[in-house]
Amino acid sequence: MSSKKQIVQCVPNFSEGRDLAVVEKIADAFRNTPDVKLLDYSSDEDHNRCVITALGEAKAMKEAVIKAVGTAFELIDMTKHEGQHPRMGAADVVPFVPIKDITMEETVALAESVAEEIAEKFGQPIFLYEKAAKTPGRENLAKVRKGQYEAMAEKIKEAEWKPDFGPTEMPPQTGVTAVGARMPLVAYNINLDSSDPEVADKIAKKVRHISGGLRYCKGMGVELKDRGIVQVSMNMTDYSKTALYRVFELVKIEAQRYGVNVVGSEIVGAVPMEALIDSAAYYLRLEDFTMDQVLETSLME
Amino acid sequence: MSSKKQIVQCVPNFSEGRDLAVVEKIADAFRNTPDVKLLDYSSDEDHNRCVITALGEAKAMKEAVIKAVGTAFELIDMTKHEGQHPRMGAADVVPFVPIKDITMEETVALAESVAEEIAEKFGQPIFLYEKAAKTPGRENLAKVRKGQYEAMAEKIKEAEWKPDFGPTEMPPQTGVTAVGARMPLVAYNINLDSSDPEVADKIAKKVRHISGGLRYCKGMGVELKDRGIVQVSMNMTDYSKTALYRVFELVKIEAQRYGVNVVGSEIVGAVPMEALIDSAAYYLRLEDFTMDQVLETSLME
Repeated sequence: MSSKKQIVQCVPNFSEGRDLAVVEKIADAFRNTPDVKLLDYSSDEDHNRCVITALGEAKAMKEAVIKAVGTAFELIDMTKHEGQHPRMGAADVVPFVPIKDITMEETVALAESVAEEIAEKFGQPIFLYEKAAKTPGRENLAKVRKGQYEAMAEKIKEAEWKPDFGPTEMPPQTGVTAVGARMPLVAYNINLDSSDPEVADKIAKKVRHISGGLRYCKGMGVELKDRGIVQVSMNMTDYSKTALYRVFELVKIEAQRYGVNVVGSEIVGAVPMEALIDSAAYYLRLEDFTMDQVLETSLME
Repeated sequence: MSSKKQIVQCVPNFSEGRDLAVVEKIADAFRNTPDVKLLDYSSDEDHNRCVITALGEAKAMKEAVIKAVGTAFELIDMTKHEGQHPRMGAADVVPFVPIKDITMEETVALAESVAEEIAEKFGQPIFLYEKAAKTPGRENLAKVRKGQYEAMAEKIKEAEWKPDFGPTEMPPQTGVTAVGARMPLVAYNINLDSSDPEVADKIAKKVRHISGGLRYCKGMGVELKDRGIVQVSMNMTDYSKTALYRVFELVKIEAQRYGVNVVGSEIVGAVPMEALIDSAAYYLRLEDFTMDQVLETSLME
């Protein structure tokens, strides 16, 4: 409860999901850094990959991430890596997410400084991606990682794919790392009183960005067989610009066309406070409300 | 960011609003206690009274409150006190409010332990009030304080008004103190597209508890002359049982009768996160949502 801290989330992915001792050592970097909290970590044998979710003060997070990346570079050998999930490096992707009292610009600057230090300290080639990308061609991670580890040694020698930091000569053991910044994802599903997967799919196509819908919404139709209903399953990629209430109301409107009703919605996993309070403010028609009025914000300073 | 802390708010009122040096010394007790945050303090000359708002870990808050009460007992002399606001002691009322990871029962226990220690340490007569009251007759602060300081020396000698802690002989300099527990208040106003104060007043009477409305709602009609509209001005005394969306929808329904529309609403001052998220959950028809999913809660542990 001292002065305001800039809080970020970091969700790095490492190319190890089978040797759990290695996963634990990577997680330790977050567990043992003051002002950083290890929220979750999970590994998948088929993917041979682990995902860490950590929350903490920006500078402390930088320190923890660099320590974790160093551990991964020491203990993972990409020349022997096999797994179903696309990957290009031992530390594969390192996205930073602004949570509190930090702007996206500042989060991008943090990502850049982490990328620079990883490149210098370990001689690692780094791509900046998503909001940290220096060119539009590098925003999309799938494009950056295309060809995966096996093609990366050649790819980073091309002028178009010169790394943002580090050498153009790929270190075989550690590969290439993508460091980026993005908004928090909100996994948001809307349930319909229909058992027809086609209805959910048609509605998803109306509301999602790629086919003409809301800018920060990805989605598809999903069947919930045990409940005998269908759902529009979405990822909201920037709740501050595409609000939950907006997609909820839009799905209701699209559903009317098929004589279908919205029966409920669900948030899977974590959601920033503001994403929900923003919807409360819409429905209650709140005037002049600011997030500072939320009592708990003074607990987070 | 260590283990979960029990967080309470405390809003003590002291009988000094003119000598600001005294007010500062009382505020210092909260300012200088680790794990306690002084959120706000204000004093009023006419009332000759100051109100402190502090937030912090339960045990630390107990320590800060006892220190502040001791300072007030040392520096305020009730035999010379004059002011427009009802009062009965140098430390007049000390309400504790549960905020995070603490139940109302635990908050009542905290209030009792503070009351006991103030009585023992300073020889102060104490009444427990609101949720901490031991009998229904002491729930209402106005009844407890009736007669004010001037009548209190006699009142606490009556069997009915024997203090919950401390002597039945009132110390003249410090008077009597009420210590209690309550839910956070939410000051919530709903604006109507009418300029008729009677309409707002009639609606207030339908929705407030005392005249047949919602259990934890107090309210009255108010005229906003500068905007040319009227408003139903309310205090929600337990948002966990009488939700904001419920009173909002009820005011809409009552307003229809007069051909009047709700144009907006406003929250004055602080509001607990859950009071708004609960309304978002209602309107978005959220299924199986828990407050643990709110990302920021892990920042408050």
